[in-house]
Amino acid sequence: MATDSATATPRIVIVGGGFGGVFAARALRRLRPPSDLHIELINNANYFVFQPLLPEVASGIINAQDAVTPHRILLGHNIHFRLAEVKRINVDGRTLAVLQGQRKRLVEVPWDHLVIAGGTSAALSQVPGLEEHALCMKNLGDAFALRNHVLRCFEWADITRFAAHKARALCFVVVGGGFSGVETIGELADMARRSLRYYPHVSAEELRFVLLQRGDRLLPELPAQLGAYAQQRLEKRGIEVRLNTSLTAATATYVELDDDETLPTATIVATIGSGPTPLATSLPQCERGRLVTDEYLRLRGAQNLWALGDAALIPLPAGKDSKPRYAPPTAQFAVRESKLLAHNINATLQGNTLRRFDYRPLGAMASIGAYRGVGQIFGINLTGWLAWFMWRSFYLMMLPGIVTRLRVSLDWFLDYILPRSIVQLQQSQRPAVRFAYYGAGDYVLRPGQLLDGFYLVLEGRLELRITAPDGEEFLRQVGPQEHIGDRLKHFDTVVRSEVRAQEDTRVMVINWDDLLRLRESFHDFDDYLRQAAEKQYPEHFYGKV
Amino acid sequence: MATDSATATPRIVIVGGGFGGVFAARALRRLRPPSDLHIELINNANYFVFQPLLPEVASGIINAQDAVTPHRILLGHNIHFRLAEVKRINVDGRTLAVLQGQRKRLVEVPWDHLVIAGGTSAALSQVPGLEEHALCMKNLGDAFALRNHVLRCFEWADITRFAAHKARALCFVVVGGGFSGVETIGELADMARRSLRYYPHVSAEELRFVLLQRGDRLLPELPAQLGAYAQQRLEKRGIEVRLNTSLTAATATYVELDDDETLPTATIVATIGSGPTPLATSLPQCERGRLVTDEYLRLRGAQNLWALGDAALIPLPAGKDSKPRYAPPTAQFAVRESKLLAHNINATLQGNTLRRFDYRPLGAMASIGAYRGVGQIFGINLTGWLAWFMWRSFYLMMLPGIVTRLRVSLDWFLDYILPRSIVQLQQSQRPAVRFAYYGAGDYVLRPGQLLDGFYLVLEGRLELRITAPDGEEFLRQVGPQEHIGDRLKHFDTVVRSEVRAQEDTRVMVINWDDLLRLRESFHDFDDYLRQAAEKQYPEHFYGKV
Repeated sequence: MATDSATATPRIVIVGGGFGGVFAARALRRLRPPSDLHIELINNANYFVFQPLLPEVASGIINAQDAVTPHRILLGHNIHFRLAEVKRINVDGRTLAVLQGQRKRLVEVPWDHLVIAGGTSAALSQVPGLEEHALCMKNLGDAFALRNHVLRCFEWADITRFAAHKARALCFVVVGGGFSGVETIGELADMARRSLRYYPHVSAEELRFVLLQRGDRLLPELPAQLGAYAQQRLEKRGIEVRLNTSLTAATATYVELDDDETLPTATIVATIGSGPTPLATSLPQCERGRLVTDEYLRLRGAQNLWALGDAALIPLPAGKDSKPRYAPPTAQFAVRESKLLAHNINATLQGNTLRRFDYRPLGAMASIGAYRGVGQIFGINLTGWLAWFMWRSFYLMMLPGIVTRLRVSLDWFLDYILPRSIVQLQQSQRPAVRFAYYGAGDYVLRPGQLLDGFYLVLEGRLELRITAPDGEEFLRQVGPQEHIGDRLKHFDTVVRSEVRAQEDTRVMVINWDDLLRLRESFHDFDDYLRQAAEKQYPEHFYGKV
Repeated sequence: MATDSATATPRIVIVGGGFGGVFAARALRRLRPPSDLHIELINNANYFVFQPLLPEVASGIINAQDAVTPHRILLGHNIHFRLAEVKRINVDGRTLAVLQGQRKRLVEVPWDHLVIAGGTSAALSQVPGLEEHALCMKNLGDAFALRNHVLRCFEWADITRFAAHKARALCFVVVGGGFSGVETIGELADMARRSLRYYPHVSAEELRFVLLQRGDRLLPELPAQLGAYAQQRLEKRGIEVRLNTSLTAATATYVELDDDETLPTATIVATIGSGPTPLATSLPQCERGRLVTDEYLRLRGAQNLWALGDAALIPLPAGKDSKPRYAPPTAQFAVRESKLLAHNINATLQGNTLRRFDYRPLGAMASIGAYRGVGQIFGINLTGWLAWFMWRSFYLMMLPGIVTRLRVSLDWFLDYILPRSIVQLQQSQRPAVRFAYYGAGDYVLRPGQLLDGFYLVLEGRLELRITAPDGEEFLRQVGPQEHIGDRLKHFDTVVRSEVRAQEDTRVMVINWDDLLRLRESFHDFDDYLRQAAEKQYPEHFYGKV
């Protein structure tokens, strides 16, 4: 492993390029000249994402590229930026192990103070199948993927001859009734409405938008009447809002609700479920999914480890009820935390007194699509067009970088005067090795379908039923570590068998094109599959299928 | 397999959505009302790409989304559009087998007349390693990938401490001195020049741009003095133009030229090498990589199969020297061909006389970056700013769709007044199973490096040399179907061995993250690798490493 040469000036290394990380780096830079302090920010993308704009990227109002600002522009020349993925923290040795460059080399980065501002990662394992089949709304790639997925669904709905497929392609389910969920479903509904005229075989009545909320109202972060207003506006536009409803399972073809209803859908967007990043998990201070700090933003028990933003669990002064309170994971708090963090690191370096964190937010706002919004500012409730306009203005103000502000404004203006683009940029790039979940009774394959990959059962059980042309039936149970698809040798292998899940079943799938590539190149693997295929069937039956 | 229901009206199905396909569909629609003729266009992307704009997408002047126009907008409601991948033509049964929808189902599409306008695909197998390591400039995804790759190289160059890595990251090699190659290298050089200020550890002198041209001049499609002018302008901007130079090999770290020189580079852009699509290859009329038609654009010997555009080899009336001539693969010709094709299909349906194809192009133009161009129009040579301006105006005129024209104009204007974005959108998404080429003597892995995957030798031979801590050496030859990386169990497995190619060697690589996923899920595969690892080393040695 290579080691970056140590320098005499203290090295402050910040992991994560969101509001917390970027603003902490800038605040520190303002406190100390470049010769006094080496400040370095490490992130695995070279741009800052303003998350509240993601629903508008997903709906095509804002170009993906316009919604973000390069870190190098935000940080300037006097803060070092490193595009790399942080893999491990060595606390005693005061280094980080990062992967960087073309070959993803492991490089060691030394630090004197380490700031963890890495946010959270999606955590969907609480609902079976959600991890395998839901789209997220965490980063720019997610928003971009959602937009392309929705357009793919429209293209599919326009040409399929199967009513069930069409219904599935045109039902869009968003899980979670917080800011992100409400804005996402509002934007998707707008996008659908505006795109419809290009799809002659799709009518407005066939579209279905469902918002699932576990609690008894939308936007729990805002007063109850604002949640009710948002619900009423969404419902007026034909969006189904299901309160007190949880998801119990998700598959490639439907979601299952806690009242046993199933909704056939090809689009599940999960705006719920935040968990710690693997990096946070690796530290002993990670509790309840966040890094516990003291009131100075230092990791509990540490002297030169700091955390802020969504990754951190930061205590606030106790309220009247003397219950412990913590800083909520919002951009407003992260920005405020960054200023205190910069002060406290500088104070530590200079032997001065640290300050405690406290902050009262100004308010909160949400867009609900169709030029309507809700919000509360300085305790005043706002709804309708005015709230929407203030939401836009406020977000524009929050956006760092004048060029980004200009580009986003222009995108908003162009969207107002031009038709929305239906260009579906991303091809369906399924990873070679993916995972899928089937509920008991679900079909995995039906006779006449294309064998689209190699299926390895991880948990549960599949049943394979082949009926030979002479009527003889062959039944096979496929349990954990057993597989189907061993006979896949050509892209157009059509199955004679019916494959169903006997119980709730998780499988690993290797897609057919990758499997063929593997078989062709890797002879031992090909032999293994050939032998497995021969073992599966009684000899007299094998010739029949 | 599902079959689309046949209708009484004749079905014209067009495969491919470039100039030829789109303009043929529109010309046919103008000749016959919707009730008389079912016209359907099938393409594997839902947008039309204007290829000459791809270099500007690659350099970030034009947003990827703005450079293209959705087919559904170009074709209107009276031409059916199907987003699908055509896998097979059944000539006797008059059907196509296509993959469509979420699960990529195989669907049959019937036709009465089939038009093949599928263009060409990249064919890079003539140079060892080119297929494995070159980026192409064929479609929008390629341009988008190139832009993100170049920005990734800048990010890498800014942080690496190794001079050799930096040199490699900052050397950009474009293969082919035709329109696409000249425009691509001109745009890349502009982009680098404008991005440099964000990368404080990269200086202009460290950048290297090399254009390789097999022939003795650039732009062979234009008069010699224009090629010379283009060369002079490019050289003035520091771009190395190598005439009479061919590539003999490409690897992940360098290209090898026919004068035995090697250029270390991480970026190889191939603008050469067009081959037939798999669909064209499947037809008996495919010769010299194109589909041979008669002068009526009918596939040779067929009555209801047609071809046009780059996919077709269309005879032109013989010139003065009575040598056979063929329509060149340009947009101008494709548009002209589409009109004749529409007339001839309609004439066939109505029993009228077919017309022969003939056309003389108006001229040709190329941008060479930095607001300069070259061209010939109606036999008049143009160079400099005027040629560049005419090139832009002409391309704007050729762009179908008023909204696309507006968006492209706006992108041009914004690029003039705003800084170029350095947002690197796409993460490095290497496919799980990829291929790599190493020249004899090249290092595959050096001691201390991260084991980044599983390497299976396909052709050639690797040598693995491990020195144990006690000084004992272990040598192993790894030949075809043998592999290294069996012991990869954690992302941070660091190798003790030196692995070099003993001869020119092709390998299949499974990246470490996909390998770990496979091992974790698929126990038989894990067992296989574990056993292979144990067999590799003499027992007394195994414990040492």
